Amino acid sequence: MNNNPLVSIVMGSDSDLEIMNEAAKILAEFGIAHEIDITSAHRSPARTGEYSHALSVIAAETTLPVIAVPIPSTSLLGLDSLLAMVQMPAGIPVATVAIGKPGATNAGILAAQIIGTADEGVARKLDAYKKKLADGVEAKSRKLKESRNS
Amino acid sequence: MNNNPLVSIVMGSDSDLEIMNEAAKILAEFGIAHEIDITSAHRSPARTGEYSHALSVIAAETTLPVIAVPIPSTSLLGLDSLLAMVQMPAGIPVATVAIGKPGATNAGILAAQIIGTADEGVARKLDAYKKKLADGVEAKSRKLKESRNS
Amino acid sequence: MNNNPLVSIVMGSDSDLEIMNEAAKILAEFGIAHEIDITSAHRSPARTGEYSHALSVIAAETTLPVIAVPIPSTSLLGLDSLLAMVQMPAGIPVATVAIGKPGATNAGILAAQIIGTADEGVARKLDAYKKKLADGVEAKSRKLKESRNS
Amino acid sequence: MNNNPLVSIVMGSDSDLEIMNEAAKILAEFGIAHEIDITSAHRSPARTGEYSHALSVIAAETTLPVIAVPIPSTSLLGLDSLLAMVQMPAGIPVATVAIGKPGATNAGILAAQIIGTADEGVARKLDAYKKKLADGVEAKSRKLKESRNS
Amino acid sequence: MNNNPLVSIVMGSDSDLEIMNEAAKILAEFGIAHEIDITSAHRSPARTGEYSHALSVIAAETTLPVIAVPIPSTSLLGLDSLLAMVQMPAGIPVATVAIGKPGATNAGILAAQIIGTADEGVARKLDAYKKKLADGVEAKSRKLKESRNS
Amino acid sequence: MNNNPLVSIVMGSDSDLEIMNEAAKILAEFGIAHEIDITSAHRSPARTGEYSHALSVIAAETTLPVIAVPIPSTSLLGLDSLLAMVQMPAGIPVATVAIGKPGATNAGILAAQIIGTADEGVARKLDAYKKKLADGVEAKSRKLKESRNS
Amino acid sequence: MNNNPLVSIVMGSDSDLEIMNEAAKILAEFGIAHEIDITSAHRSPARTGEYSHALSVIAAETTLPVIAVPIPSTSLLGLDSLLAMVQMPAGIPVATVAIGKPGATNAGILAAQIIGTADEGVARKLDAYKKKLADGVEAKSRKLKESRNS
Amino acid sequence: MNNNPLVSIVMGSDSDLEIMNEAAKILAEFGIAHEIDITSAHRSPARTGEYSHALSVIAAETTLPVIAVPIPSTSLLGLDSLLAMVQMPAGIPVATVAIGKPGATNAGILAAQIIGTADEGVARKLDAYKKKLADGVEAKSRKLKESRNS
Repeated sequence: MNNNPLVSIVMGSDSDLEIMNEAAKILAEFGIAHEIDITSAHRSPARTGEYSHALSVIAAETTLPVIAVPIPSTSLLGLDSLLAMVQMPAGIPVATVAIGKPGATNAGILAAQIIGTADEGVARKLDAYKKKLADGVEAKSRKLKESRNS
Repeated sequence: MNNNPLVSIVMGSDSDLEIMNEAAKILAEFGIAHEIDITSAHRSPARTGEYSHALSVIAAETTLPVIAVPIPSTSLLGLDSLLAMVQMPAGIPVATVAIGKPGATNAGILAAQIIGTADEGVARKLDAYKKKLADGVEAKSRKLKESRNS
Repeated sequence: MNNNPLVSIVMGSDSDLEIMNEAAKILAEFGIAHEIDITSAHRSPARTGEYSHALSVIAAETTLPVIAVPIPSTSLLGLDSLLAMVQMPAGIPVATVAIGKPGATNAGILAAQIIGTADEGVARKLDAYKKKLADGVEAKSRKLKESRNS
Repeated sequence: MNNNPLVSIVMGSDSDLEIMNEAAKILAEFGIAHEIDITSAHRSPARTGEYSHALSVIAAETTLPVIAVPIPSTSLLGLDSLLAMVQMPAGIPVATVAIGKPGATNAGILAAQIIGTADEGVARKLDAYKKKLADGVEAKSRKLKESRNS
Repeated sequence: MNNNPLVSIVMGSDSDLEIMNEAAKILAEFGIAHEIDITSAHRSPARTGEYSHALSVIAAETTLPVIAVPIPSTSLLGLDSLLAMVQMPAGIPVATVAIGKPGATNAGILAAQIIGTADEGVARKLDAYKKKLADGVEAKSRKLKESRNS
Repeated sequence: MNNNPLVSIVMGSDSDLEIMNEAAKILAEFGIAHEIDITSAHRSPARTGEYSHALSVIAAETTLPVIAVPIPSTSLLGLDSLLAMVQMPAGIPVATVAIGKPGATNAGILAAQIIGTADEGVARKLDAYKKKLADGVEAKSRKLKESRNS
Repeated sequence: MNNNPLVSIVMGSDSDLEIMNEAAKILAEFGIAHEIDITSAHRSPARTGEYSHALSVIAAETTLPVIAVPIPSTSLLGLDSLLAMVQMPAGIPVATVAIGKPGATNAGILAAQIIGTADEGVARKLDAYKKKLADGVEAKSRKLKESRNS
Repeated sequence: MNNNPLVSIVMGSDSDLEIMNEAAKILAEFGIAHEIDITSAHRSPARTGEYSHALSVIAAETTLPVIAVPIPSTSLLGLDSLLAMVQMPAGIPVATVAIGKPGATNAGILAAQIIGTADEGVARKLDAYKKKLADGVEAKSRKLKESRNS
């Protein structure tokens, strides 16, 4: 599936893989070709840093949309990572989502939404995904009511 | 230009207009049709709230990408607004950018980048915009050196 | 007891149940009919989000008092959840209490206090509950003194 | 109107009056009898403190609902005030609303909502108020569109 | 030793005992008579709250120095507790020390320092304690150097 | 009055004088001899720093109680100053009060309370001061009620 | 003086010049050759960003020491800028100093201290500078005492 | 190796050793002579405090560069420690790096960079270290791709 990837997931360290796999899972579920790499694969010392710091370089060198997932592994719960990512200067937009796994899931959906603006097949899969989420919550709601009535 | 808008700028209050105009300016510069509205125009009491609170409703009802600009007018400098926007639950992605005017500018560019993934004309304009920014900084750099050498 | 509920406990996820059960316990102790549900039972995609985000919708659509309990399960200890809930815009009041279980307990008592403004039976139970709390602390104080004197 | 007040607005200092008047205005608009006082009127040195500190005393001595408005006049933008109010221990609920004037407005509406649970006249006024808010936003939306089309 | 206590250690809950025992240990080491109690022993509902909230009452009713130890058991790491204690309004001083056990130790030393301003015996014990601390660090320093040279 | 000062007010910079004068005013009102100095008067380069940093040196070299007033002049509203002061390590207690002028006032009262533990004259003045504060609030309360009734 | 600069002051925007001039003044006072530039002078789009984001690139490409001054112009008082700079990943050290002008002054002194480790002339100037600071504080202390005694 | 140390690693407590060993490891890897000590080895009570507080004394008494590593062992995750270190007043620069082990590693590299400004051997080792880091990331990237293709 990784030929001609539409989405590139770039991490600052292989320890981010557990979190960023949530984004990959969403993209796989939507059938969107993607690749995962560690930033330094580009062989520049400038890319040995963490994603939070490296992404300003990526954001500045492309006109493609860049999505950022703050990693909560740092000592300040990810708040430092979040602020470094979201407070980009005017001219270098970075689409920041929530800290950690919920953010990685949303990064995958957001990438699909971007692709879905011009790809009706992906847009339909997003509608189905939304319905599946709603059905899942409804099932849990039913189960909760049954357990309280029994 | 507002016929068939590709981008909808939705505010929680007309007091946000000064900030969100920065996004409108970018979209106008790129020739992207857009509209600006206050959330409650949809006539639902659910939409009388501030953008930071109303956008979860918007994000949950669409499969189009949603970009959020935290407004710094609140008493906590916009940090409360930023956290409420960026920390969306898994399943409802919101692409959050920086607080205030730099964020509004970046929201405009990010919208153009999303459209540019399938519209080569917009992609070329983004390249030109990036070059213009770099030229502007270079001119300032030259001026700074001249002023220090004279 | 769930027929004609006076209080509706609405959660964004079944993982909030352990915390929100503290509110249910208080209401059961006061004999106040209540129901517990997950937001999406209402079958709208707008309600698949977390409570912190969904409650602005609830608050905007009702003229009944809405009480919010910030859930500490997020990566920022619940501070993001707290700020998103308490910093509601003018026109949409949400009565926010403490993060987590102490907040859920207080949400239950606050609901009882609201009902108690027009229901003398509940008001009397609140007086008794307050006395029970004070007696409990006094017993602990006595025990502490005895353990230090022995 | 101050005979037989249903709502008591208690401040820690007369410098809070400008903010808390927003709550009084709402109560007056709904025709709900209320009083405004500075805490120390009760003549106890324990009540010379600021509202944020004094309200735990009030909350502990009553079984009526207590609503707290964090005052932004302190050096930390009101965040210290907000945390002190909202993080009450289990057993002493305080319904905290937003910092400053939006919070004071919401405190007034919340008080009306509590009274409205047993007073149909107030409940009807709340419905009318909500409609007035929605109409106001819609008028602003219309005006915004006209100004952009002209 | 608890007859005629010079220092009263007041807690909001018996769960604070593990932390506040550090203060008691220091006072015992200095031979200063003290008592430990839970606030509600005074039988007032106003005193069923946590120490952070109850101490404004204590501080307002006495002209004796009041020392506050923020308890880290709350969901915000004790930062909420710290801000609520230290940001007392003008007129009600509370001497706040560090969060948790280091703070409890320092509260004990501070109480001894206050007593030592008029009691030469306690002042001499404080000098000896300071020397003991310095000797302890020196011993650790020597041990560290030996372990690195061997 | 500065002969044989009982209290020494030490500042890191003469720009702190406006705030710390609030402490001096209280001490003068209570007739307590005091001095004000800038830390570096002791001629050590270690003392050219700000109070927040210099006070750990003072606290470590004395067995007298040390009170700290965080100065809000720094770029982080005084929160950095507050945390640096209050989070002293075990063994070096510093009695921290509120940020800025309210804190300086309370530092003066706290110093008087410490002296008042062994000086009945000062203790009586503290009682009178407390009564004066309560009377002041009561006068304001009366004035507020009159203005609302007229 | 700008030939063969030993120190390069790099800014993200010419609006940072007022703050960073404090560093230049210190370097000029110590006779250390330096240059000031805006990052994008290097003509790379990666360098159009703010200093806080661009410096990870600089830090990653050099083995010379890199000093960072957080700029307080952002909406979060510079705290976001500070955290983005100081929380660099292992392998890319950045020597962060205080926010704003005090930080810029200290950045200049720190650069001089680094040069002074191998340049005795600069080391002697640092000793003289330190003495000048201490003398200045002493003069202010004397003036303060005279004004209080007169 | 500890004769004629070029770098002195000073800790406030032996419990900091696990973190600060990361700095020692880097210095050993670069063959830079260094010593590790606990502050109080200097036998002054002023030095019994934690590093975050003691370093202002060190910074004020030397014209050598001082690097600070915030220790995350405190109750506020190290944020208090970080702010106390980085927000030094003008005149006392302290080069602050990240909280905890990544910061200690970077403190070691930064010390080597400072020495490398005048020692070509160390500068060459820094270039080699940088290359080793980049090679390590590249190896991880290769391994990640292989694991996904298999």
